[in-house]
Amino acid sequence: MAETEIQKNLREKNAEYASTFTQGDLALPPAKKYLVLTCMDARIDPAAALGIALGDAHVVRNAGGSARDGLRSILVSQQLLGTREVALVKHTGCGMLTFTGADARGLVAQNLGPEAEAAVAGLDFLTFRDLEAEVRRDVEFLRTSPVVLEETALSGWVYEVETGRVRRVV
Amino acid sequence: MAETEIQKNLREKNAEYASTFTQGDLALPPAKKYLVLTCMDARIDPAAALGIALGDAHVVRNAGGSARDGLRSILVSQQLLGTREVALVKHTGCGMLTFTGADARGLVAQNLGPEAEAAVAGLDFLTFRDLEAEVRRDVEFLRTSPVVLEETALSGWVYEVETGRVRRVV
Repeated sequence: MAETEIQKNLREKNAEYASTFTQGDLALPPAKKYLVLTCMDARIDPAAALGIALGDAHVVRNAGGSARDGLRSILVSQQLLGTREVALVKHTGCGMLTFTGADARGLVAQNLGPEAEAAVAGLDFLTFRDLEAEVRRDVEFLRTSPVVLEETALSGWVYEVETGRVRRVV
Repeated sequence: MAETEIQKNLREKNAEYASTFTQGDLALPPAKKYLVLTCMDARIDPAAALGIALGDAHVVRNAGGSARDGLRSILVSQQLLGTREVALVKHTGCGMLTFTGADARGLVAQNLGPEAEAAVAGLDFLTFRDLEAEVRRDVEFLRTSPVVLEETALSGWVYEVETGRVRRVV
């Protein structure tokens, strides 16, 4: 298979990682029974920044760290794999603060054409305008969701990409 | 706010991380213009195992590393933030190989009651039975999706949780 620079980097860096890997016997269910939901943003390294040891927690990431988008994963995590706590971490400088659904639909139409435009006609891009309000809103969404266990310990945080610090919002 | 052990760990480990943090000036768009899509599994540390330096790539994670579930994020990543390459990484021992949608629906009905049962009636849990076939199927899904740029460099991999190694499938 032809290889891009990125694929080569992945293969080579993984070979280094595997050469000293010693944690091949961890269990499937997260040892500390929690899940971290955060954004796909390139400036976040959840394991390092949030102290997640290998094997301890599920980590769900999507554009914006959306609870709605992550709901299937949270449901599987709780019902099949026994997690009982969710920490939701959004962040400063999030791309989802910088555009609207209409902007995104316009770009799709322009760059991808009418078939793509039709495909995203009903899509909620899940953008938002106020970071802390969105943390509260998403935690409330989980708190009131019929598919999230009532006893779930929920918390909401903001990670600052400028300082590496988190602060708790809710 | 009352604090669980997990929240305390997050706060304390983050304070350590932030105390030596020096990368506060990274740009929002991923520097290497790629996205890694993988599973939420607790035994995967994508940054370490796949050689992703801070700021270089979007990382999307969900139950099973599903391309369909991740499509909104990939669309945002490409159209708003300029990424042009996707590496899809599923893994051995995935929870999504161990149950069916019917199993999940049964657990939801039993543990959460009729309102939740109704809420998941139309939900595709996106389980699968054959790991490598699912990697190929998801890469093909992206290759033929009208909302994914045609010039996207796509690759599909399996990460072995037993050894820390990846192998390329497609």
